[in-house]
Amino acid sequence: MASDIKKAIEDANEEAVGRMIAAEPVLIDIAPASEVIPGIGERSIFHAGPPVEWQRMSGAQRGSVIGAILFEGWAANKDEAISLAEDGSITFEPNHHHDAVGPMAGTITPSMWVFVVENRKFGNRAYCRQVESRQQFGEYSNDALAGLVQWRDVWAPSIRAGIQQLGGLELKPIIARALQMGDELHNRPVAASSLFANAMAKPMIEAGVPKEDLLSTLGLLAGHELFFLGLSMAAGKAIADPARGIANSTVVTAMARNGTDFGIQVSGLDGEWFTATAPEVKGLFLPGYSEGDEGLDIGDSAITETVGWGGFVLGGAPSILSFVGGSPEEALEYSEQMRQITVTTSPDYLIPALGYEGTALGIDVRKVVQTNVPPIIDTAMAHKEPGHPIVGAGLVRPPMECFKKALIRFGELVEEPQA
Amino acid sequence: MASDIKKAIEDANEEAVGRMIAAEPVLIDIAPASEVIPGIGERSIFHAGPPVEWQRMSGAQRGSVIGAILFEGWAANKDEAISLAEDGSITFEPNHHHDAVGPMAGTITPSMWVFVVENRKFGNRAYCRQVESRQQFGEYSNDALAGLVQWRDVWAPSIRAGIQQLGGLELKPIIARALQMGDELHNRPVAASSLFANAMAKPMIEAGVPKEDLLSTLGLLAGHELFFLGLSMAAGKAIADPARGIANSTVVTAMARNGTDFGIQVSGLDGEWFTATAPEVKGLFLPGYSEGDEGLDIGDSAITETVGWGGFVLGGAPSILSFVGGSPEEALEYSEQMRQITVTTSPDYLIPALGYEGTALGIDVRKVVQTNVPPIIDTAMAHKEPGHPIVGAGLVRPPMECFKKALIRFGELVEEPQA
Repeated sequence: MASDIKKAIEDANEEAVGRMIAAEPVLIDIAPASEVIPGIGERSIFHAGPPVEWQRMSGAQRGSVIGAILFEGWAANKDEAISLAEDGSITFEPNHHHDAVGPMAGTITPSMWVFVVENRKFGNRAYCRQVESRQQFGEYSNDALAGLVQWRDVWAPSIRAGIQQLGGLELKPIIARALQMGDELHNRPVAASSLFANAMAKPMIEAGVPKEDLLSTLGLLAGHELFFLGLSMAAGKAIADPARGIANSTVVTAMARNGTDFGIQVSGLDGEWFTATAPEVKGLFLPGYSEGDEGLDIGDSAITETVGWGGFVLGGAPSILSFVGGSPEEALEYSEQMRQITVTTSPDYLIPALGYEGTALGIDVRKVVQTNVPPIIDTAMAHKEPGHPIVGAGLVRPPMECFKKALIRFGELVEEPQA
Repeated sequence: MASDIKKAIEDANEEAVGRMIAAEPVLIDIAPASEVIPGIGERSIFHAGPPVEWQRMSGAQRGSVIGAILFEGWAANKDEAISLAEDGSITFEPNHHHDAVGPMAGTITPSMWVFVVENRKFGNRAYCRQVESRQQFGEYSNDALAGLVQWRDVWAPSIRAGIQQLGGLELKPIIARALQMGDELHNRPVAASSLFANAMAKPMIEAGVPKEDLLSTLGLLAGHELFFLGLSMAAGKAIADPARGIANSTVVTAMARNGTDFGIQVSGLDGEWFTATAPEVKGLFLPGYSEGDEGLDIGDSAITETVGWGGFVLGGAPSILSFVGGSPEEALEYSEQMRQITVTTSPDYLIPALGYEGTALGIDVRKVVQTNVPPIIDTAMAHKEPGHPIVGAGLVRPPMECFKKALIRFGELVEEPQA
């Protein structure tokens, strides 16, 4: 009987990673969230991580919410924004409950323009907000919000015109190439950002984007090394979602943090969050900040690790070490280690520094618990208090408790699987 | 007395690499060779490698000369072109005798547009032709020449307009970033090409390049992964030239091949070539070609290794191994090994995969002979017969004979240096 269950789990896990491998993420649009994300209300703020109410939100999350309210014009100043957040006028929900993801605090509001990535193999769509280094980290100054306004009024519409001119842009080829150019697509999407900029110049011109907007947008794309993170996250979400809800599968379909809790979701237990206190991040600080300033782990960006990028491909991205710390040897070890806790390797996303072996794919909660090896995530760091931009970057491991809770719940449902 | 000479050599070598390190290569123009390269005649063909007369030219070199003559319109067909080459109507000279370099056969003719890179630290200028995969490899079909025409009439003038709009483009930052993105800047300048394309889109628009030319040129830049090789070669030449002519210096200032001979030049012996038969290249073949089709080693592109890139940074560019062969471990070993034969490491050009150590810089002919370790060069392969495009790519080591000849000549001049 136990071996039947084990077989059922392994078949289900093969199905889960098979769907991830078959995914075909295509950037089909950039549009206001209100137009495209199902279930976003007039006063919705979607956020990173598992559910969290205003009172329990981390400093960065609260700061980012204040910024989002001011950006939407729902309040005229910080105090009014806090009142709205406190009095229940705002509906807070996780991005992951709406096919969406967001970096760091990850706040998505109705008039914010989001990337729309369609998985052409399965027909599902995923959404992600743009990446910047201020409001998503909890800063809410006028300067910080000016970037959101420029995105809404100039940059996003210009890139949208280019995407529509192209009839969509396949992301898999860009991601595969970027992995061969030292990107890990989470904290270091430099090559992918450059390749994306190359791909967009011509169609934006062909689409007739006005010269001033065109120049401003090309300036953004040529200078924004983290731009593609919004696309690798949307692609990761579009890839992971079809692997949800496969009975008996112990494959992780989401890892997300809100600065208070770390939560994971598991294919065979779809809809449930398995949470624990968000961990501390160990890393390097930007000038002006130092240890003790940082908040706990935050962001939906661990969707990149969920599909085998980010920390999982550090061995192929040694350039990121100047940003997150560590040695090239450690980076290679991380990538090797991740094979212990995953179902398979990708046939498409390859790491030249590991002899062109595929990225480790499909985190199996059983293997995480059995080996006592949690996934490795590389991430940025936000401040512990509201009002700050990015403070640094580093490496983090999720709490084992999330995986243990999931495995216990799994055992309750199907009978404890035998190792 | 011997120790005085040793000290003089080491001081001279420090001076040589110091000049290479201080170099500031800036792309200041793209222009017809006739306008910018000193000493180019009306019927000049400059070529790669040390001097070679028509009768001794390799197949690829002869094919490329035929293509160059047809491109210039000096002959109407292949047979007429060969007659001109044979009868002395054409003046053949090495690129290196005119501050220039060219990939593979490396042919530069008066109406071909060349990159102009100025070393702002020393004021010298270097020139390189564009990189393509046909005429420079010896193909002379109308199709192959159409690429040269498009370069002359559309692409080069468009990029020139952008460069002039910018007032020049510093290459050092692009090269340093590309080395952190898995480029080695010889056979794999993918990231540098992408970054260059990013840098040029905006200024070409601002310069008012006509829309059709603009779109065509952006298409070239976004799709041409080897584009930047012409710039890394021009930069390499601009960096290496000020290190020439330092009395007592045993640092190599050029390595160049014409498919017949391999030649090196040495700082303290400026103006002399130390040559031997060009070696065979070991590598991988493109579809349609196989072992035995390839000619001997060819091209001025080893100027990249001369300044510490190319084969010297293979350890940081494992993605190139799918093109030239070998394992990531071997690639790291090559980079380590090159430190045995060089004077120093670069403080600016760093390799993340080697813990951010600098590239090995300044090949010392003494160390090459003492260790019996010749430099490692990664290179493309041309066909042994005229009329073919690129056939493959691989790794090659120069003949030790070149270094031994140089050391003997050095000994004749200054007294044999003591190891």
